Amino acid sequence: MSLITLNTGMFIAETHTEAAVWQFTVEEMLVAGKTQYQEYQICNIPRFGKTLFLDFKIQSSILDEYVFHECMAQPAMTLHPNPRKVMVAGGGEGATLREALRHNTVDEAVMVDIDEELVDMVKEHMPEWHQGAFDDPRTTLLHTDARKYLQENRGAGFDVVLSDLPDPLEGGPAIYLFTKEYFQIAADAMSDDGVFAMQAGCANCNYPYLFASCMKTLQDMKETFPYVAGYFGIVSTFFMPWGFIVASKKENPLNLTVEEIARRHAARGVQNRYYTPRFHQGAFTLPEYLLEAVEEHGRVLTDAEPYIWTA
Amino acid sequence: MSLITLNTGMFIAETHTEAAVWQFTVEEMLVAGKTQYQEYQICNIPRFGKTLFLDFKIQSSILDEYVFHECMAQPAMTLHPNPRKVMVAGGGEGATLREALRHNTVDEAVMVDIDEELVDMVKEHMPEWHQGAFDDPRTTLLHTDARKYLQENRGAGFDVVLSDLPDPLEGGPAIYLFTKEYFQIAADAMSDDGVFAMQAGCANCNYPYLFASCMKTLQDMKETFPYVAGYFGIVSTFFMPWGFIVASKKENPLNLTVEEIARRHAARGVQNRYYTPRFHQGAFTLPEYLLEAVEEHGRVLTDAEPYIWTA
Amino acid sequence: MSLITLNTGMFIAETHTEAAVWQFTVEEMLVAGKTQYQEYQICNIPRFGKTLFLDFKIQSSILDEYVFHECMAQPAMTLHPNPRKVMVAGGGEGATLREALRHNTVDEAVMVDIDEELVDMVKEHMPEWHQGAFDDPRTTLLHTDARKYLQENRGAGFDVVLSDLPDPLEGGPAIYLFTKEYFQIAADAMSDDGVFAMQAGCANCNYPYLFASCMKTLQDMKETFPYVAGYFGIVSTFFMPWGFIVASKKENPLNLTVEEIARRHAARGVQNRYYTPRFHQGAFTLPEYLLEAVEEHGRVLTDAEPYIWTA
Amino acid sequence: MSLITLNTGMFIAETHTEAAVWQFTVEEMLVAGKTQYQEYQICNIPRFGKTLFLDFKIQSSILDEYVFHECMAQPAMTLHPNPRKVMVAGGGEGATLREALRHNTVDEAVMVDIDEELVDMVKEHMPEWHQGAFDDPRTTLLHTDARKYLQENRGAGFDVVLSDLPDPLEGGPAIYLFTKEYFQIAADAMSDDGVFAMQAGCANCNYPYLFASCMKTLQDMKETFPYVAGYFGIVSTFFMPWGFIVASKKENPLNLTVEEIARRHAARGVQNRYYTPRFHQGAFTLPEYLLEAVEEHGRVLTDAEPYIWTA
Repeated sequence: MSLITLNTGMFIAETHTEAAVWQFTVEEMLVAGKTQYQEYQICNIPRFGKTLFLDFKIQSSILDEYVFHECMAQPAMTLHPNPRKVMVAGGGEGATLREALRHNTVDEAVMVDIDEELVDMVKEHMPEWHQGAFDDPRTTLLHTDARKYLQENRGAGFDVVLSDLPDPLEGGPAIYLFTKEYFQIAADAMSDDGVFAMQAGCANCNYPYLFASCMKTLQDMKETFPYVAGYFGIVSTFFMPWGFIVASKKENPLNLTVEEIARRHAARGVQNRYYTPRFHQGAFTLPEYLLEAVEEHGRVLTDAEPYIWTA
Repeated sequence: MSLITLNTGMFIAETHTEAAVWQFTVEEMLVAGKTQYQEYQICNIPRFGKTLFLDFKIQSSILDEYVFHECMAQPAMTLHPNPRKVMVAGGGEGATLREALRHNTVDEAVMVDIDEELVDMVKEHMPEWHQGAFDDPRTTLLHTDARKYLQENRGAGFDVVLSDLPDPLEGGPAIYLFTKEYFQIAADAMSDDGVFAMQAGCANCNYPYLFASCMKTLQDMKETFPYVAGYFGIVSTFFMPWGFIVASKKENPLNLTVEEIARRHAARGVQNRYYTPRFHQGAFTLPEYLLEAVEEHGRVLTDAEPYIWTA
Repeated sequence: MSLITLNTGMFIAETHTEAAVWQFTVEEMLVAGKTQYQEYQICNIPRFGKTLFLDFKIQSSILDEYVFHECMAQPAMTLHPNPRKVMVAGGGEGATLREALRHNTVDEAVMVDIDEELVDMVKEHMPEWHQGAFDDPRTTLLHTDARKYLQENRGAGFDVVLSDLPDPLEGGPAIYLFTKEYFQIAADAMSDDGVFAMQAGCANCNYPYLFASCMKTLQDMKETFPYVAGYFGIVSTFFMPWGFIVASKKENPLNLTVEEIARRHAARGVQNRYYTPRFHQGAFTLPEYLLEAVEEHGRVLTDAEPYIWTA
Repeated sequence: MSLITLNTGMFIAETHTEAAVWQFTVEEMLVAGKTQYQEYQICNIPRFGKTLFLDFKIQSSILDEYVFHECMAQPAMTLHPNPRKVMVAGGGEGATLREALRHNTVDEAVMVDIDEELVDMVKEHMPEWHQGAFDDPRTTLLHTDARKYLQENRGAGFDVVLSDLPDPLEGGPAIYLFTKEYFQIAADAMSDDGVFAMQAGCANCNYPYLFASCMKTLQDMKETFPYVAGYFGIVSTFFMPWGFIVASKKENPLNLTVEEIARRHAARGVQNRYYTPRFHQGAFTLPEYLLEAVEEHGRVLTDAEPYIWTA
């Protein structure tokens, strides 16, 4: 019996560092197109189900989009004692917005995603993701540059800012949304007890570089954010743990007890599937290799010397 | 600028469920061959470095083999108050043996791997893995079926048994090494405070099935193993968290404190890179999807109805 | 400088024997779907342009569909001294029909393709292939089994029958359209000087088996078809020469001179791009390996023992 | 029944234009290494058998290396009325040399291949290719630049020069071995009735560019080579017809009759498997698309403006 098998079918191939290519099986192509900013495909992948690709990078699948989006929103939302005003930078699928709105304390949520065509497509073809969040009366949806918006809304007093942006790829639009200047602009648009959270790239040991530098950069802003903590989510469809960072003006995320998280969730009508009270501590316990990467490879990212993802 | 790029080079392709194929870049083929039981390749993979494949499944790379092998050995070794006699079932690369021997309490370690040709190859070509463990005077290396060995050594009083076996693939040799009967045979060869640990397959959410059933099976052996706890290791080269289970006759792994782990490690001359005292709790905090998988998909595995990995 | 490059993008993979997989770059997916009989994709492939895939096998691209379809129709049409009534078996894209209709001697053309949904799709999305042939007043389009149609039209007196059918894949609908019985049924629906032509599979040296057996089968029908000749077309998008066979009741294709072909083409208003008068002889000169394959691997195909393509 | 299958195993991937990647199945890796000039692998490919790759481009397989190498040597050798002194430029595998030596008129054969390490490897591992040609007493094997050798041997009076060189890849060593100056240097080292033949790249319709320009260049040398004729060989393992050109000082290859070829072969003890007397005419009958490519895309290649293969 030979172990060798050959492939037949349709595939989307994503290169993940020089080490490997992932070929995802396209069982059915549902929607495909191009906006001013990116190419997209929505397709059925066996086991993953409905899945979104942007520029041939897997974004999220129905199998576990909740893992990514809870990680994106829930720790920051939970950490803030009373989040009323929330801003989502990016977040095209509408699922980060959805997660924020689940906290019944929220009475205003602004989502700023530059790619209007993509969001229009998502509204129509990805209802499982947004689940009506765009139509929530508390939602304001804007299509402009998130950094520009925050800059123009200095003093707006957002309780929580969720930075759910694409990786800072060479030539892409997100390079200046991963710098100290951007983080300061976000802070300036936040309330005095504001909480900032961001997706910060791969958290595996073969590409921890973006995460390391985002950590280093936020840690370098002690006066703005006295508390900075990294955490990871096990996103199976990404084939790796994914890194996130929460930066807080007043409360230390590491001090949140299981009981306090449970209390807040209950009070706000929130019940999570991944970021549960008991799971908080584990998610914030970074493996040694990530801590080492911060020390060895992290640097302060600035507009002058931003991070450019070349892998 | 087109985002499309095409591939040129040499690759090893591993199918991971129907969802995807991983094509690993072979920068240099170092050794390739076939034993009575399996095909192997050792090659250089960019970023991963020296890497072993068995039957076209990635086994471990120099980048993070320590993550897998610490997870394989350290929690069980640490949990036992005074591990002197250790048995490794399988463990071809010699790295699980190496990890066990790092505890200076050990005075006898038996490794039983059926594939002599593979171990001979490993001895010569993978010194970074075994690091001389095969030549340690405390080591006895045998090439026979691990289950048969344990059966014939009922009452041998092993303090720790580490079951580092290949997945129970259809037609493969490991199917009856993932059953209740096997676990009982192992228990019978262990001391009264013995600790058993095993690699238990994928711990991601698209293939949690083997893990779920191994958990269910060991949980069903309350009289033999009052304490059963699953944990995971972030093995970046596996593109997923990997699942392990510790089953203990006397001590509860969840009761180990950071301080006690640190004390034991210090006393035994052990310093880990991944399974550090502070990381214990996080590793044993399973995500909800794994807990749910145990309930929904787990079943008691027996010789009559073993697990057969068909993916 | 490393020679290694990795792939990113969308691909359709076709397995061609155990030796290789071809991954075609999908620059743009135009149409994709499924009929009762097969899956299809129409997409833009770099250099190939618009391309049709059926069941993940490349069918034809705008780059050189004329090569395949001229080979499919022109030698037989040219060989008949006065083709008035033509039948196309299969031929979904409408391009074989188009080629037949280019002979202005034709006053009746019947195309019988079982897959109505596919032909409807072709009508809308592949006008470059059919070029209006379906709307030609001489055309009758039917959707039934081609063999059944021919059987029910015994004595219909077709001058030319063009068998442009899918390969006889295991479980597919074409297995009994590559047998002696089918060829006899076709002959019985043809005029006394009728010419039959068929696509007969790969003409490369690693899979000449279907071609070999089709040759052997038609050669075994001397009383029906005194003249049987194989020829090949260089179909670049197939990555190989493709095999065709013409079987003739009265005229020997090998006797056609350059001058006579030129004369007939001129008289009938035909000007070819691939099957030109000067090229006839070369196309009918089979390489030795194909002649050997006929002798070594060819067998007479019957309904009882049809050819089943398993590669 | 799903048509989709996924791949598992080892593969060598070759990109052939932007349109496609070919993944060859590596059943067994026999030898792999690197010389000063190139990387090589010899492996078993299903159906192809033993196969050589250079820089991840398939070079020849045991299945049909005779097609390529007969095409490389036999038409030129046959065309010369009495080839006694032959020079092979490149030709690492030794099979072009082998083909030349099969003409018993030859009493001196010089092979000049710059890559000594590769030829040494071939001697040991590819006996099926050279079949002892390197040990033939008529053979002189040199390792220097073929152009330099020819330049230093102006007036040497070679009857036949066979230019079996790698494609002029960007950054590769062969760029100035596909120019008018090189062809003139070769001519100057040839006898007055000398015949030159070269491999001239792909002869399919999606990459006919090198062939077109080589044709144009040699056609532009009427005074040196009054007769220039292109021909192709169906090299199944290349997944396309391959282009060759013969340029002759005195005899016109198109005038060779079947009988004359047969006579020469018989007299010289030559019996071919692909380039048989009856096949000569077909091989020299180029498809229209190649003739058009010469007119539309061909240009005279010079040292100042050489051909650089970028695909």
